[in-house]
Amino acid sequence: MTVASEFELANQQYAATFDKGHLPMPPGRKVFVLTCMDARLDPAKFLGLEEGHAHVCRNAGGRAAEALRSVIISQQALGTREIVVIHHTDCGMLIIKEDEFREAVKKNTGEDVSHVAFLTIKDLQESVKTDVELLRKHPAVLDVPITGYIYDVKTGKINKVDV
Amino acid sequence: MTVASEFELANQQYAATFDKGHLPMPPGRKVFVLTCMDARLDPAKFLGLEEGHAHVCRNAGGRAAEALRSVIISQQALGTREIVVIHHTDCGMLIIKEDEFREAVKKNTGEDVSHVAFLTIKDLQESVKTDVELLRKHPAVLDVPITGYIYDVKTGKINKVDV
Repeated sequence: MTVASEFELANQQYAATFDKGHLPMPPGRKVFVLTCMDARLDPAKFLGLEEGHAHVCRNAGGRAAEALRSVIISQQALGTREIVVIHHTDCGMLIIKEDEFREAVKKNTGEDVSHVAFLTIKDLQESVKTDVELLRKHPAVLDVPITGYIYDVKTGKINKVDV
Repeated sequence: MTVASEFELANQQYAATFDKGHLPMPPGRKVFVLTCMDARLDPAKFLGLEEGHAHVCRNAGGRAAEALRSVIISQQALGTREIVVIHHTDCGMLIIKEDEFREAVKKNTGEDVSHVAFLTIKDLQESVKTDVELLRKHPAVLDVPITGYIYDVKTGKINKVDV
């Protein structure tokens, strides 16, 4: 049994009591949240988000360099006017080393991924600062409030990073 | 008051009863979910996911071309062995036209984004097929079950796409 078929069963329950069919496309709270894909993170829960509130963009590490397309669309097409960047403790991106990882992928799949930047992280304070500053300075990103946090997977708390 | 400061307050409540600090880094259900950043989508809720279950990668449209880095990391470093791709009805990417949007960004920000592929969508069945096939054929992506769905924002249902 695939996980997909389990999702289909779980989704039947969600749809059975679904009452959010009226929500408009633009995020009601006009905010773009960028965070990691990590399985332990449920940003809707740990930020108090309901359906319709916020764009939630997630990738390995929660890296801004890969989220620029989504940020531009969020701001220019759907009116968000604030950005929140959240990296987290015990992130897989802290463990991976770019060169070693490229070699492992080559060994395991045969594919040369030497052209891919895996956007690994050495220090969480630095990665949050780097990503907040990248967004603040990018000429295609609007001048909006941008706040950075580190989510602690041991406590469920977000801790602000001074940028 | 920023939305970020509202998030800090909501997060205090989440952390106050947090009991997930023991979860391991690799996703327990060994699945990678790719979907859109759309505010109306709460994939944890509509798929029955709890903290620790799945990687959840989200970008504008839920496009695979931009998720490859995250998929490779998910499989090679954290052991996921299934992929679920979910696009959705009333997606903003159906409304945006690449050329017009680039012109709008240039007009509104002064920045030339003619080098950016915004990965807009013309037809949802096609976009899901394209993205599932991209992942199935990519040499750096493992041969794992990949299932595609369209989430209906009016009903909360996921509907499978034959690929």
